[in-house]
Amino acid sequence: MLAAAVRLFNERGYEATGMEALSRALGITKSAIYHHVDSKEDLLRLAADRALDGLFEAADEALAREGRAIDRLEFLVERSVLVLADRLPFVTLLLRVRGNTEVERRALERRRAFDHLVADLMERAAAEGDLQAGLDPTVGARLLFGMVNSLIEWYRPGGDLDAAALAALVRRTAFDGLRARPAGR
Amino acid sequence: MLAAAVRLFNERGYEATGMEALSRALGITKSAIYHHVDSKEDLLRLAADRALDGLFEAADEALAREGRAIDRLEFLVERSVLVLADRLPFVTLLLRVRGNTEVERRALERRRAFDHLVADLMERAAAEGDLQAGLDPTVGARLLFGMVNSLIEWYRPGGDLDAAALAALVRRTAFDGLRARPAGR
Repeated sequence: MLAAAVRLFNERGYEATGMEALSRALGITKSAIYHHVDSKEDLLRLAADRALDGLFEAADEALAREGRAIDRLEFLVERSVLVLADRLPFVTLLLRVRGNTEVERRALERRRAFDHLVADLMERAAAEGDLQAGLDPTVGARLLFGMVNSLIEWYRPGGDLDAAALAALVRRTAFDGLRARPAGR
Repeated sequence: MLAAAVRLFNERGYEATGMEALSRALGITKSAIYHHVDSKEDLLRLAADRALDGLFEAADEALAREGRAIDRLEFLVERSVLVLADRLPFVTLLLRVRGNTEVERRALERRRAFDHLVADLMERAAAEGDLQAGLDPTVGARLLFGMVNSLIEWYRPGGDLDAAALAALVRRTAFDGLRARPAGR
């Protein structure tokens, strides 16, 4: 039921979709929905957490690794793309949240905590001399996840490009650039 | 008047904002608005064209340049970021257009034409051996403008980072990557 509700929110907009429309589209009564959740906000909370829990698990794994910050960042990006591909409708809904209700504000707060964590890793990478000279770590984190998050606009699982290939591609493009490397690297 | 209308559309959503709300927020009568434009769709068309005309001017300049496709792509990215920074509310509105009306569909069509143009340049860069091995040009174009377009989420002119510095940074990050280059390049 959650997946169907999220699909509908993504198609019609979360705010524009009421419980009435939800019950019609899902083909179940409103009381059947209320048997599972207390409100529309509850559905949003469950959906946002599905996305955010995945991202934070990826971050925990990245932080638990040994080695240089830049390598842990690369790992985190690759894992984040896998989460995005695997939970695409949930991440899509999360990224469109604007913050008008308590549930939305909480989701935005968790998103910001994730962004801070990325910026912190970026800062460490800069301190270790592994980041492009002159790049502010916060700006770097934004450009990096700007590229990752833009995948929701066009990536559709089941096509020619599987999630693992996509994740490797985004990682390589973000850290090594679009340009072909001169021989030797 | 157009700028004020676009600000309101971006804040409250284009679909959710009627002429009544527009006239209240702008502090002018509806008939004064209708003196300038025929409809809300007219405002959207003017705003989307403001963004799109800037992007196509940048593309025309890029295509008129001599040299390798990858260098023209770099030029186009830098100029696109400048257009985005200069016309931020218009580009923001454009990127949120979903295609429910004739005006919206036309804006989406022009966006797609721009994307194709970027993908074509990317294809030429690949043929010239300047693109990262194994990167599909269409995917490359999407990742590139995914990063550029994500700027609307956080970039605000007038802060520490001026538009020219931002444009140079995005160009460098997209083509050469976040990672510090080994000495010699």
